[in-house]
Amino acid sequence: MTLALDLVGTFVFALSGGVAGLRRLDVFGVVTVALAAGTAGGIARDVLLGETPPLAIRDWRYLAAAALASVVVLLWQRDIGRAAVVVVVLDAAGLGLFTVAGTLKALALGVEPVGAVAVGVLTGIGGGMVRDLLVGEIPLVLRRDIYALAALAGATVAAAGHGLGVPPEWLAPSAAAVCFVVRMIAWRRRWQVPTSLLGRRADR
Amino acid sequence: MTLALDLVGTFVFALSGGVAGLRRLDVFGVVTVALAAGTAGGIARDVLLGETPPLAIRDWRYLAAAALASVVVLLWQRDIGRAAVVVVVLDAAGLGLFTVAGTLKALALGVEPVGAVAVGVLTGIGGGMVRDLLVGEIPLVLRRDIYALAALAGATVAAAGHGLGVPPEWLAPSAAAVCFVVRMIAWRRRWQVPTSLLGRRADR
Amino acid sequence: MTLALDLVGTFVFALSGGVAGLRRLDVFGVVTVALAAGTAGGIARDVLLGETPPLAIRDWRYLAAAALASVVVLLWQRDIGRAAVVVVVLDAAGLGLFTVAGTLKALALGVEPVGAVAVGVLTGIGGGMVRDLLVGEIPLVLRRDIYALAALAGATVAAAGHGLGVPPEWLAPSAAAVCFVVRMIAWRRRWQVPTSLLGRRADR
Repeated sequence: MTLALDLVGTFVFALSGGVAGLRRLDVFGVVTVALAAGTAGGIARDVLLGETPPLAIRDWRYLAAAALASVVVLLWQRDIGRAAVVVVVLDAAGLGLFTVAGTLKALALGVEPVGAVAVGVLTGIGGGMVRDLLVGEIPLVLRRDIYALAALAGATVAAAGHGLGVPPEWLAPSAAAVCFVVRMIAWRRRWQVPTSLLGRRADR
Repeated sequence: MTLALDLVGTFVFALSGGVAGLRRLDVFGVVTVALAAGTAGGIARDVLLGETPPLAIRDWRYLAAAALASVVVLLWQRDIGRAAVVVVVLDAAGLGLFTVAGTLKALALGVEPVGAVAVGVLTGIGGGMVRDLLVGEIPLVLRRDIYALAALAGATVAAAGHGLGVPPEWLAPSAAAVCFVVRMIAWRRRWQVPTSLLGRRADR
Repeated sequence: MTLALDLVGTFVFALSGGVAGLRRLDVFGVVTVALAAGTAGGIARDVLLGETPPLAIRDWRYLAAAALASVVVLLWQRDIGRAAVVVVVLDAAGLGLFTVAGTLKALALGVEPVGAVAVGVLTGIGGGMVRDLLVGEIPLVLRRDIYALAALAGATVAAAGHGLGVPPEWLAPSAAAVCFVVRMIAWRRRWQVPTSLLGRRADR
């Protein structure tokens, strides 16, 4: 079950990477960005935790899931714009799953809560950051929405629940749901993080 | 004492990250760039040396120092421009401390002198490079001043002194001071590295 | 012999990094990009495989080879444009060597074939990607030619041959030659990867 969810997350992030590459890159570039976006968060997590080789390298199904996503992007590139809502929803699910999985893995390896939350957030947002850097843009997560804040919420719930002794089979889905719901509400209501503590920005 | 200096370095680099993010990013983006700039050099050092999880993940005080810096940037963003001199001075101190600490840590783990100098320089300049990549600029360290050369000077003194058997309690502050002084003199006199070995560049 | 080829690869990739830095950076920037381009692929490989400190840090000859390349670039910057053909040929040789060495090292450490191919391709293209990110460009490997596809071909041959029990002293040069030949033919005939599976792009 955990593996299935992990692979879905990889697939969805790879999808977003492929779409980002479509406008500027050739076929191989689209595949490369898709692979990088799907696996970068988990690879960063495993390297930071000293779990090498990373799971995405050890288990071929991660790369297969990401490769499948790039094929989907290339075959249906005309329709994929219309499916934007689906991508956003799946991406929010992936964000929640990756963030919580990263946090719990770090805690299980004895990392302190604050560090575990940092690892979790990095696992969740890492794929998107690498995607944007590769196509030459300032990472979206730094510019818009409360994307990373949703990850922070999910990771904090996971770390707090772990400290309170909530069993993982209850904790993981709950914390991932918190992240997912925060992200979806923010997206629907077009919440923005203010550009300064003194006031919200006028426009964007 | 070492920890205190390390945390001051983290705080100062995070400050520079937050300021770099102010113009383009929202509040969360400023915090993220500040955290990344404050911790990236030390994380790269620990990952390269196989000391995982990195100290910045294991010890919550590193993230706390970086988070505090981002709050300072957000609260006093109007005044922070006037304090530019203070930031440059503290940043030079951080550069010296991080570079020397990275070099000595690598030597202590049995890395050869040339490799240890490379690790030290990377520890010193890593935070600034990540900061600039995240906000979409060519890293400042590649474009201007003799910033990285100051780190190279400090790391070389540290490696040479270590080889000569100078005790660390004398060596670390001396080597950091060399780096600091080179950087400050270069900044005051507006030294530039020539663009070619054949002549200095006309302007910038 | 392996070491000699590895050092040649480092030298050539560093050369390409130095040339990329020439137009925009000062002397120290050119040296930094050269060092990064020459060593990044191997460092990424070793970090992913948990072989820390990376070989490029442990053995001073890697950094020396990269430093030598930056001196060459700075001393002969006027002539180096005319030697473009030489650089492309050597770069293709470096790509083959690094890709195959990365693949075989991963396999020797027990990584599955698919993961080993990924590590090999990353070793081969990593230096060029870091080079382009540092000078603020979308990595060339994502935009043009079948550069990465040549690496994929070489890594696949290496993994397949390893699975079939071909002895490494025969396998390594053959797989590297496959990568080299694919790259050189693609370059001579100006092959391009199509931008979509539906058709080749009209222009660039």
